[in-house]
Amino acid sequence: MAPLNIDYSTIVKIHAPATVANMVCGFDVLGFAVNDPYDEMQIRFSATPGITIINDDEYNLPTDPEKNVAGAALLAMMEEINEPVGFELTIKKNIKPGSGVGSSAASAAGAVVAANKLMQHPFNNEDLVRFAMNGEKLASGVKHADNIAPCIYGGVTLIRSIFPLDIVALNAPPLFVSIVHPQIEVRTADARSILQQKVLLKDAIKQWGNIAGLVAGLLKEDYDLIGRSLEDVLIEPVRSILIPGFDLIKQKAKEAGALGGGISGSGPSIFMLSKTQATANQVAEAMHQVYEQLSLDHHTYVTTVNHAGVRFVE
Amino acid sequence: MAPLNIDYSTIVKIHAPATVANMVCGFDVLGFAVNDPYDEMQIRFSATPGITIINDDEYNLPTDPEKNVAGAALLAMMEEINEPVGFELTIKKNIKPGSGVGSSAASAAGAVVAANKLMQHPFNNEDLVRFAMNGEKLASGVKHADNIAPCIYGGVTLIRSIFPLDIVALNAPPLFVSIVHPQIEVRTADARSILQQKVLLKDAIKQWGNIAGLVAGLLKEDYDLIGRSLEDVLIEPVRSILIPGFDLIKQKAKEAGALGGGISGSGPSIFMLSKTQATANQVAEAMHQVYEQLSLDHHTYVTTVNHAGVRFVE
Repeated sequence: MAPLNIDYSTIVKIHAPATVANMVCGFDVLGFAVNDPYDEMQIRFSATPGITIINDDEYNLPTDPEKNVAGAALLAMMEEINEPVGFELTIKKNIKPGSGVGSSAASAAGAVVAANKLMQHPFNNEDLVRFAMNGEKLASGVKHADNIAPCIYGGVTLIRSIFPLDIVALNAPPLFVSIVHPQIEVRTADARSILQQKVLLKDAIKQWGNIAGLVAGLLKEDYDLIGRSLEDVLIEPVRSILIPGFDLIKQKAKEAGALGGGISGSGPSIFMLSKTQATANQVAEAMHQVYEQLSLDHHTYVTTVNHAGVRFVE
Repeated sequence: MAPLNIDYSTIVKIHAPATVANMVCGFDVLGFAVNDPYDEMQIRFSATPGITIINDDEYNLPTDPEKNVAGAALLAMMEEINEPVGFELTIKKNIKPGSGVGSSAASAAGAVVAANKLMQHPFNNEDLVRFAMNGEKLASGVKHADNIAPCIYGGVTLIRSIFPLDIVALNAPPLFVSIVHPQIEVRTADARSILQQKVLLKDAIKQWGNIAGLVAGLLKEDYDLIGRSLEDVLIEPVRSILIPGFDLIKQKAKEAGALGGGISGSGPSIFMLSKTQATANQVAEAMHQVYEQLSLDHHTYVTTVNHAGVRFVE
């Protein structure tokens, strides 16, 4: 790569969106970005080589770059830069860690997208996904890309293959997203260990019929087909027992008009897709009612699919 | 349905195309029709209620409608007709039974499409698939639709769900198809029993990443993506041991420029997709060379994806 043109006065500011991974039948391979919430980050060159992390929020996340997901992503990037360089990164997290909407991915992806812009784009999007996956590895022990890729590319993304990395951006019609975040903790390790290593072939066939239908529905902008295909016969029946009220939330959301939805990432957040804002509002209200009756603390929000990915701001 | 307008002088003639089911990663859910070979059939009303089948080929298939796949399909259709009706169906099969390119589906689908036209279209395509699946049940014991649906709809079709039936026609860019039919018998029952009932979740995930990529590749007309996605990590490694020379055929076909391919249906035919006619010819030649060296009798042919399904002819 060309020598860096280091200008200490430049500051790059970005918004890194929340993302929904494990999109129903697209477990481990399909995710999408949303417009709200997003993390706010800014980066500039520092005269001291290495990474300085400044937290501008209440989460007290580690500032040691090796223990911080944004730091881990930047460290991976710096291994491919041929000269010593220093970054000062300020992070204001608005996406609550552990909520299941890609909080760690936003930090990791936001950091490398911002640094890449600061350096005048030496790396392409696939490189950036590769770097940011190191943040996910730090957060969850696994280099997965189904939050990272939509965070960087925007929209709905397919990770066809992780080794070698093969990311396919999928067009989608306008979609409104209702999310409820019950204030409980689902440990990613628990969500992972509860899954069986083997599944029935006949269920797997149903699942790939559905993901094929979902991809076709998105590309053909066929809302009915999207709705019919939003079915997960393998993961959701197992993982949903970790989320109180899951079945009722889903039933009420569908009665309120949602196309369908499921567990966001490994939970505990639940997302539902709708064709209109009005429906999405009713769906969020229905979600709220269920947790109200269960006396479970929760937040609901209504947003849209974000087609831009990480955004640069003034 | 409205009373039939029976005209004994009308003859409906059709061509029912061969089809490739189990399209690589789309086991049980994705199939496509080809322009060659096709069965020729003609149907007319008969004054005798019931079904008369006349074979105009060398295969000596049963003419008892309950034992003939076309007859079984017509019988299912007649159950939904409110009056006694007689059909005389003449079948000239060009698609060799047992070759793995939807011979039974062509008979069953062709018969009901022709009868429906003769009756001035009382049934829709989904009805016709439903009826024709009874022919498949007779032929293989299972009501599967991944040959029937592309035979009737044309092009590449997704069977998202079989109960309830949900068929999605997928657009595709021009594709050339090389097929080799080794003159051996693979019993469908063997091809079925060799499969494990359970599969590794991690392999299933790979498979649905690939089918999602394949559907996206077809709809986006992205040949590279189609090629990368034509990978089956679950069924092919097991079933291909029933087909002599399979791995070498596949390797040589890819070296000759094929995008990819696999077992057609449950075999023994092998199909390969290419972007151009010239490549498809080279691929067929490569297939031929392999079986020539193995001294195995075989036929090769080069055709294209058929986007019309069953065609009416003069």
